[in-house]
Parts: sequence; structure tokens; C-alpha cells
Amino acid sequence: MRSLRMIGILFLLSGFAVSQSQPQLNLMPMPASVQQGSGALPITSSFSVSIGGAHDASLEAAVHRFEHQLSRQTGIPFQTKAGATATLTVRADKAMPAVLKLGDDESYQLTVTDSGVQLTASSTLGALHGLQTFLQLVTITPGGFVAPAVTIKDQPRFPWRGLMIDVSRHFIPIDVLKRNLDGMAAVKMNVFHWHLSDDQGFRAESKVFPKLAATGSESHYYTQEEMRDLIAYAHDRGIRVVPEFDTPGHSRSWFPGYPELASGDGPFTVENEHGPSSVTDPTREETYKFIDRFVEEMGKIFPDAYFHIGGDEVDGKFWDSNPKVQAFKQAHAMKTNQDLQAYYNKQLQKVLAKHHKTMIGWDEILHPDLPKTIVVQSWRGQESLAAAAKDGYSGILSHGYYLDLIWPAFRHYAVDPMSGGAANLNAEQQKLILGGESCQWAEWVTPENVDSHIWPRNAAIAERFWSPQDVTEVNSMYARMHAVSLNLEFLGLMHNAARDRMLQRMAGTTDISALRVLADVVEPVKDYNRWDDAKGPIDFHSPLTHMIDAVYPESDSARDFSNLVQQLGQSGYRDRAVEAQIRAQLMLWRDNDAKLNPLLQRSALLQEDIPVSQNLAMIGAAGLQALDYLDKGLPEPDLWKTQQMAVIDQSKKPVAGLLLMVVNPVQQLVDAAGQVSH
Amino acid sequence: MRSLRMIGILFLLSGFAVSQSQPQLNLMPMPASVQQGSGALPITSSFSVSIGGAHDASLEAAVHRFEHQLSRQTGIPFQTKAGATATLTVRADKAMPAVLKLGDDESYQLTVTDSGVQLTASSTLGALHGLQTFLQLVTITPGGFVAPAVTIKDQPRFPWRGLMIDVSRHFIPIDVLKRNLDGMAAVKMNVFHWHLSDDQGFRAESKVFPKLAATGSESHYYTQEEMRDLIAYAHDRGIRVVPEFDTPGHSRSWFPGYPELASGDGPFTVENEHGPSSVTDPTREETYKFIDRFVEEMGKIFPDAYFHIGGDEVDGKFWDSNPKVQAFKQAHAMKTNQDLQAYYNKQLQKVLAKHHKTMIGWDEILHPDLPKTIVVQSWRGQESLAAAAKDGYSGILSHGYYLDLIWPAFRHYAVDPMSGGAANLNAEQQKLILGGESCQWAEWVTPENVDSHIWPRNAAIAERFWSPQDVTEVNSMYARMHAVSLNLEFLGLMHNAARDRMLQRMAGTTDISALRVLADVVEPVKDYNRWDDAKGPIDFHSPLTHMIDAVYPESDSARDFSNLVQQLGQSGYRDRAVEAQIRAQLMLWRDNDAKLNPLLQRSALLQEDIPVSQNLAMIGAAGLQALDYLDKGLPEPDLWKTQQMAVIDQSKKPVAGLLLMVVNPVQQLVDAAGQVSH
Repeated sequence: MRSLRMIGILFLLSGFAVSQSQPQLNLMPMPASVQQGSGALPITSSFSVSIGGAHDASLEAAVHRFEHQLSRQTGIPFQTKAGATATLTVRADKAMPAVLKLGDDESYQLTVTDSGVQLTASSTLGALHGLQTFLQLVTITPGGFVAPAVTIKDQPRFPWRGLMIDVSRHFIPIDVLKRNLDGMAAVKMNVFHWHLSDDQGFRAESKVFPKLAATGSESHYYTQEEMRDLIAYAHDRGIRVVPEFDTPGHSRSWFPGYPELASGDGPFTVENEHGPSSVTDPTREETYKFIDRFVEEMGKIFPDAYFHIGGDEVDGKFWDSNPKVQAFKQAHAMKTNQDLQAYYNKQLQKVLAKHHKTMIGWDEILHPDLPKTIVVQSWRGQESLAAAAKDGYSGILSHGYYLDLIWPAFRHYAVDPMSGGAANLNAEQQKLILGGESCQWAEWVTPENVDSHIWPRNAAIAERFWSPQDVTEVNSMYARMHAVSLNLEFLGLMHNAARDRMLQRMAGTTDISALRVLADVVEPVKDYNRWDDAKGPIDFHSPLTHMIDAVYPESDSARDFSNLVQQLGQSGYRDRAVEAQIRAQLMLWRDNDAKLNPLLQRSALLQEDIPVSQNLAMIGAAGLQALDYLDKGLPEPDLWKTQQMAVIDQSKKPVAGLLLMVVNPVQQLVDAAGQVSH
Repeated sequence: MRSLRMIGILFLLSGFAVSQSQPQLNLMPMPASVQQGSGALPITSSFSVSIGGAHDASLEAAVHRFEHQLSRQTGIPFQTKAGATATLTVRADKAMPAVLKLGDDESYQLTVTDSGVQLTASSTLGALHGLQTFLQLVTITPGGFVAPAVTIKDQPRFPWRGLMIDVSRHFIPIDVLKRNLDGMAAVKMNVFHWHLSDDQGFRAESKVFPKLAATGSESHYYTQEEMRDLIAYAHDRGIRVVPEFDTPGHSRSWFPGYPELASGDGPFTVENEHGPSSVTDPTREETYKFIDRFVEEMGKIFPDAYFHIGGDEVDGKFWDSNPKVQAFKQAHAMKTNQDLQAYYNKQLQKVLAKHHKTMIGWDEILHPDLPKTIVVQSWRGQESLAAAAKDGYSGILSHGYYLDLIWPAFRHYAVDPMSGGAANLNAEQQKLILGGESCQWAEWVTPENVDSHIWPRNAAIAERFWSPQDVTEVNSMYARMHAVSLNLEFLGLMHNAARDRMLQRMAGTTDISALRVLADVVEPVKDYNRWDDAKGPIDFHSPLTHMIDAVYPESDSARDFSNLVQQLGQSGYRDRAVEAQIRAQLMLWRDNDAKLNPLLQRSALLQEDIPVSQNLAMIGAAGLQALDYLDKGLPEPDLWKTQQMAVIDQSKKPVAGLLLMVVNPVQQLVDAAGQVSH
């Protein structure tokens, strides 16, 4: 309950309302420098693009994609005529590098006037970003689609702006990854961290060790050709691909094919959570020979300089219960399992260095025995990152950016890699904070709903990594995130569209208007509360087809409603226009259950939501009665208030993993009605 | 106005309401014989399929697609275990023929019990249909997904069940065609008629005559590889592909590359409707040599026995104004241009016969000089078809199945190939009626909205071609069409999803709830009224991104509302529960404009809809007041009635090409309030 209450309070503080003033620049991430001009460029069917500077197939492909996306956003089929003067001229001095590197120049300048657009960049990378910025500028107005006049000079705050997707817990096919790469490019993220192995599946084909995928993936893996294809796709979009093969923990999927790597006894299987687990055995020389050959093979597929070895959450019990490992520790005077893991990582680091790869791993890899070249990815927080930086290690922040915790966007947005412990670093140390990565762990997502767990919230995180540190205004963030969200759907992402499809499946009909009313005001439980509710281990094969899987992580309706209630409160509960809007919403909720209940009754997937719908009806009624008391200027009777508080308390409890997000603002109305004195 | 009034009246008669009784069999087309059993087969993750009979790669691929679709419909990731007993056994005695032929055996038998499914067919074609039937049986219940126990024996009424898609007026890419082929297979249609050329574009690559596509398509054409790929895709789904190259009329796109084929003088261009037009010159021997080589080339790409030469709507003025053509007619003692076209077709028929193709063409090709083997596709009606049959010609019906006329489904559904003039044919003549084809002409569709113009209405037409003639109940048709519509979306069709995407583009925001309320109750104008409204010739490059392009051809909300009003009327306006539902709907409409108007004002694409939204508000208010009078049992004042009739008359007029479909039932309420006497 604690997290729910905290979220409720934060909601009340955010006081968000979308600004309706025109023109507003719906840019996300917000550029480093924006100067608005006067007038606007009309976007018509004669819009065209010309490319100057170095010849670069990547830039040409990017311009082609740009034209395609502009057409999807506006519905205009562009008709480029030979010889016509281009509306937009792109000039990049240097072509896209064959291999993208950390710290590549990504800056660009974009000038829009009422007659044309100039985009210049020192390299194609910057030009790519400028094209994305232009797409975000395009907006519908009473005069048609336009791009407002503006001069933008832009470069990123951090060089490492990543999204990690776990493809082990649930396999995510290449086409779904590709559309997410499109989304990353749209918000200027530049590192795709591919979490390719974990206990539940080894997803990369190795030809040297074919049993890794053959027996460790239940037939869900990427061929080498598919991986190369995805890397090229990412490269075309200015995105580096960093593979992660998690070891020595989270490594059960290596063992069905190669049980000799494990510290415990097999036979091993990845089928769900049954059967024995283990961690890698760091005592055998053969383990390092295996990893040497494996890294050599993967290193050729993944051109990036960085190679992620995981290293998190090693379950020491598998070493503690292995006499051979205990003997090894004793022989090498290692006191703790941390010492043993450091030994392991040191060997790994040598292997990586041999193959010209730089090691990156989670917090636990940090150890003074390792060279300063390694990069620490922190799931523990800025303190951990700052401590590393003080020791000369560079790092990226992921604590605070776990998308699978289902936080509202503003909560991720408030997390800054340079805040907390990192705020006190000196300039030299600060440079070691390279940026951050959002993380989509995949215990509770499928190819069908993964987009909505990542987007649009990931756009707010992308802004944190790209934009100046002082870009923090929450209302502005939400307004711009919504605008970008629409463009992302035109790009092919399914974060909005998939919900209705899933609701229709549950309902067995396309007529889901009443179901949508309920879905609009609930959110999945937060943090790891869904795990707590799960009885026993997760069944990774069970369908994720319930309401909790379909609804958006963040309810716009609830936030809007909460803002209306704040507005009403600020008017001393006297603003009749606002009150009318609140009443309309409350009536909709009060009356919805009568329509929805028969539908819920009919579906095995929806029956668990019957109490949620009933709670919403009661909450709607409570809010309306509270407004009646407020209107009459009479304090509410004690008995009534007691009854309503019982309804409110009941409605705050998660049901079927769902939180009813409109309870707090209704409670505010009930509380206000109790304090009436005017 | 005539068509609108007629539709209104037909609505009132249809009295549709979806039956909520369980279990209902949501099958479309309805099989020839259905016997419901007791119990139902649960669909769980252990569901599996085994294949018996002849080895057939097509059947294996079909089973694979079936499993994929079943997974999408249910959200269940199926886990087939080696050695497990299959839930569904498929047995087809004969493999898919290498080339599909008219009249191939398509029958199958499907038996579902509470423990398993047996599907048998004499060939893979029938097995494909049986798999589709099973997918339609699967439904969500309080006990989970099930397939109700049933025994089905099924075969088609007609052997030719087609969908024509015009890809000339607006180019439709291969992937969009493929998802429509998936839709066809789902409703057991077996002929894809590919209207590949017309005045506005020649869409097929010819290597013999490369200028056809190069100069006649504005770069929008299919390569030969793409056409072969589509044909294979269709074949895998039991669908024949009949290409159409329209000649001698509708053939302007042949001429930019080969002006010598034209009767008039060039130079020709396909760019929109500007520049000179013409028809083919039938007097030159070279024309036939050209067609000979062209048919030879295309005949190798398209394996089907039938080859469609168009032949419709030849504009005689291009022959009348050509002295050479006049001289030719005189020399050959031809009196009319019809005679000249018959001469032309006779030459074409010889060319087709040489390349082992059977000619099919529109009504106009019918002429006693042509052999009885040709097939007539009738856009004129059953009389025309019957006349042909009496002369020994076979035919298919398309009159009544033009999807681009934007009729409601029940109107297409009421058209039967064997009705009207065809009803009086003898048994021998009746056999010459091979079936029918729905037609999607593409003046007003794009890749984005073509699905919604075809689906779900095309499913009702498919039923007309497959199911016994006495399957005609409209309420049942709508209920089943809705269920199938949902499955079609899971198959990848965008007929529902595209609307919201387009509304969001117009609005420039994802928050379109008020816009949806308006979109739900309007339909595009019918028949050719949009043409009449268009100023001058159509600009085929102009974006189709307005409300008229986004909304569904048929409004479910309006039909449901109309049915509620009928119900209320049948209760003597006394049923309070029904009245409450009607009031809720009317209030929603009355209050919607206040929310929607600011959004409409902001968008150049939506401003034209401002009066429609205002009309809806007034209609909502009128309906509510009428109910008030009815409730009080008092006749309404004359002045009030006069005012309301003015509102109603105004609201019946199309605005921005939109018909407000709820005016008629509200008028009924106003009329009833005027006749109160209780």
C-alpha cells in the first residue's frame, strides 16, 4: 500500500494540464537551444528534400524513411518533381562511421522559416537527429499541416542513452525490436542493450556452441543472420547495439546444452522455473576457454566496442554447496563469494580485452582488481555510480529507469544521473557518468504488449539523457510526451493500438466502449507487487491476456481527473464549469458498471474485474454526493462520511492486480465536503 | 436524397439486435449443414494439431498459420509436446493442385466434441476451409476459450467467389493485398480479381514492354517477382488470381509508353485527369501483335485459366473522331461502335485461346460472335446475366456488390446471383451462373483505409456466395459479421484500427474520445454522390485524410440506436429501461459538441465537420425533448414540432460528405410525441 499512497500524493502535487496555446513546440527530447521565429512552413504535397555534403547511403536511407514518416503523419502522398527546389536541404560533412563509437559527434542545426528548412550537421549522425526533430515540429493547425519557424542548435547532454530489452523471460521477435529501434531513433536514444540470455532462455545462435540456443531457448532464438540484420538496422538509425550475456548468475539457460559450465549438478532445463538451477563454475579452466571461443564468435557479429557480461545477483548458495568451489576459494585465499566473482570477472576481462572488447556489467562487477576501462551499469543508484566514479570507473545509470516497475512517467523523469550522490562529484569525475539506460525486463510482457510498457514513458527518460539538466517541468513533459506518442504510433509502434485489440479479445466483441471506460482509469500494480501476488514461481508460458496486461502503465484519464479536482479546489469549489466536467466524468463511472457487468460475467478473462467495475461505480456515486454537499454548502453527515471512507478504503486495494487511479481525487472531494463552512 | 431516404426506411425495417444467448455459432459464411452437439472443447496451451493423408506442404503451411492465428485470437502461446495426442486431426486425401481450377472440390467435414476435433476433406482445399471454420468456432466463455461441440458438413453454393481490387486509381501495395487475401481465405472466398490497369495507372511490370509500367505508373507498380509472390501466397490460401488488363476503354495508362496503341493523338500522360485521353485503336494489326506478346508474357506469370480483358465503358467519341477508324468501320460494314468492339474482342479472344486462356470481361463483351467459353462479369445486373445464360454464356454477378458505393451490409446481402431475371432460368442455364465478385474500385481509397471499405461488409457478400440460398436472416448476419470482424483484425486487417489512427492525425492528439462520438454516428455519402460533390475531375494525388475517409461505411451505433427506438415504439413508448438507454445516448450527443468544437476549430482537416457536430447536438436535444413530451403524455406544441422538423431536415443534408445516421430514429421520436394520446 505504501507505494500506492506515495503515487497518489505525487499526483496531487503535479497539477498537470495540457496547454492549448498554439503554436507549441512538441519536441521531445527538448533541444539544447530553441529560438522560435515568426510564421510557419506549410507542409504540402510539393514538399521535397535534397541532400548535400558527403555521399552517404545511410543518410539517403534516412531521408527516405523521413519522407515516408512525414507522409504517414500528414497523410500527404508527396510528389517530388525532378528539378524542383527542395523544401528541406540536409547537409552533413561526414558520412556515418562504419562502426558507431561512444562520443561520436551527434550535434546538428535546424533552421525552419516560412519558406524552407536547412539542416546541417558535422556528420550523418547529427543529421539523423535533426530529421527527427523536424518530424516532431510538424503539427496540424487551422491552416493545415505546418512546421513553425524556429532555429535549433542541439547536441546531447550524455553520450550513452540506452534502452535495454530483456528477450529471455519472454522472447521478443525481430520485427518488434525493429519498431522499438525506430522509436528509440525518434527520441534520439543511441544504445540498444540486448539482454540476450538469462535463466529462462538463451536467445542468440552460436555456431561454435550450437547447443546454447538449440537446448536453451525452446526454439525461440535469433539466428546470426537476424542479429546481423538488426545491428545493421540499428546502425542505419545511429544506434549502437551492446549484447549482454549474463554470467555467472542468471545463466541457467547456458547449462542444458553445456552442463559442465555449471557449479551444480544437472540435468538442466529452461522449461519454466522447474528443475534444478545453478550459476557458472568459475574454478574450471575450461569455462574460460569456452567463454574465449564464445566471445570471439559473438565479437565478430557485434561490432560495438562494449560487451556486457551481466554479473548481477549471483546466488552464492550454488557455490557454497559445491565442495570443489569451496576448496578453490580456500586455495586462493578468497574470503567471500564477491572475491570469487571478482576473480571470475578478471578472467573474463582478459578474454574481452583479447578480442578488443571493453567490459560493461552491473554494479556487482565493480572491484578494485578490475581495470578502470570497465563500465558499471547501476541498478542500485547514483550513490553506487558516484562511488565508482570516485574510484575512476565510468558508469551509466539504470536505477530509476526500470520500465517494468510501471511507474508514472514523471517519476522516471525526476531521476537524474547527476543527482543524489553524483551531484557532489568534481568535473573530472562527472565526465565518468556517461549517461543511462531504461530497462524493460520481460517477466510480464509479450510481443503484443511490450510496446505499451516501453512507450511513451521511455520518451521522457530519453529526454532526461539528451536535454539540458534544467529541463524538468512536468506539465510540459506530459504535453510533449503525448504529442510524440502519436508520432510513435505512426512509426509503427503499437503502444496505444494493442490495448483495444487485447480488450476486444477478452470481451469477444469489438464493442468495448464500457470496457474502455474501466480500462482508462486503472493501472497495473507497481514495483514488484505482481510478483508478490503470483502464487509460487512464474509460469513463463501462461498467456498474458488479462486486464493487467492490456491497460496502460499510466492512466491519462486519472491524471486529467485529478487535475480537474485540483482546479476545483483552487477555486474554493466554486468553479461551476470545472464542476460540470467533474460531474460528467463521475456520472460516466457511476453508470458504467450496469453496462459492463454482463460483459465481464461472460468472459473467463474478465470475471476477476467485476469488483473493480463495482468499486468504480461506488466511487463515482461518492464523488457526486460529495459535490452535492459542496454545492449546498452543508457539511456532510458523519454516517455518510464513514460509509464513503469505507468505499474509498476498499477501492484503494488492488484487485486482479489493478489499481483504481481515481480514488484519491474522489477522496479529496469527500474530505472537502466534510470541511464545508461557506 | 433518394438513396438516403431509402436507406433510412430499410434501417427501420431491419430491427436488428445482437443475440446474447450462449453458445452462438459465429460462423460466416454459414456452412451448408450444422448440427450442434452438447459440451465444448476447451482451448488450452496443450492444444495441438496432427496432419494425416497425403503429404502436402500447402496443408502444413496452412496448419502453421492456423496455429498462429489461434494464438492471436486467444493470446495463448501453444506448447506442442512431442508425442502428445493431437487435439485436432486434419486429413485431406488429395494435396493442393499445382494450379487451382474453377470447380475444384472444396468440401469438408468438421466434427468437434468436448475432447477433440476431426477435420476431413477430399483435398487440401476443403481442409483449408475447415480450419477457417474452426477458428470462427472458438469463443470466450465464462469457462475460458472453447469451441462448442458441432458437426459440420460443408461445401460452397457457387464455385466462383471473388473480390476485385482496383489498384490503378490508387496503388495498393503488396502487403495490403496480402492481408486482404488472408481475409478472403477467412471467409472462404476463392478468386482474387486483380484490376491491374486503368486510365490512372498501369501497375504490372512487363519486361517485353517495359514502358507500360515505367511511364504509365508514376513508379507505383508490381515487379514480376512481386506478382509471382502474391500468386503463390494466394495459392497457398486456396485462392485463384485472375488478372485484369482493361481494354479498349479504361486504357489510357497503356499510351504514355506506347502511344501507337491509341486511337487519338498523344502525347499521353497518366498524371491525374489532365492531358489527352483515348481508347485503344482496334484497326491496326500491330495492336494485336502487341497484345499477343503481352498476353504471352502475362500468361506465364498468371497460371489461372481465366484472363480478364475488361471491356467496359468504351468511350466511342475517340473512335468517332478518328477518320481511320471510321473508314475501317465502313470497310467492314460495321454499323456501331459495339460492332467494332466485338471485332476487337474476337481478335483478343483468338490471342487468348492461342495462349490457353479463357476470356472474361464485363457485360459489354457479350456478343454472338464470341464463343460460348467466355465468361461475362455483370456490373449491370441479374437481367444481363440471365440474358447471357439463355444464350449459353456463363457469368458472374458484381452488380449489387460494389463496395465503393458504401452501402450497408444488409443491402449487399439481399442481392442474390440467382434472383431477379436469373430466378427464371432452367437448371441447365442456372449452372452457367458461376457465382459473383465484390468490387472495390479505388477512386476514394488509399492503402490506409482500403481495409475498412472492404471489411467487414465483404464477409456478408462472401456468405451470399458460399452459403445456401435460404440463409438470409439479417439480424443473424450482423451478429456473425461482427464476430468475424474481430477475428479479421487479429489476422492483421486494419479495418477497425485504422479509423482511430486517422482521427488522431486529424486531431493532432491521441485524445479523440469526443471525436469518436461524432465519427460513430456518421457515414460517407452513398453511391456516386461523392463524385457529384467533387469540383471538376478527381485529383488522385490529393490526400484522403478527412473524416469521410476515416469513418466506417456503416455505423453500428446508428443501427443500434435505431433498434432501441423501434423497441421503445413497440412498447408503446413505455419501456423505461430502453428509454433510459436512449436518453443516455441522446445526452452524450447533445453534450458532445461543447467538448468537440475547440478540437474541430484547431484542425484544417476537421473544420468542415463543425456543422455536423452542431447538428448532432441539436438532434440529441430534440430527441430528449420528444421523450419528455412522451413521458408527460402530452402532445407537443405545434411551434416546437415545426422547429424540430427544421433541425431534422437540416441534419439530413450531407455536410463534408457525411450523413448523420441518427436523424431518422430521432425523427421517429418527434413524430411519436406529436401523436401522443395516452
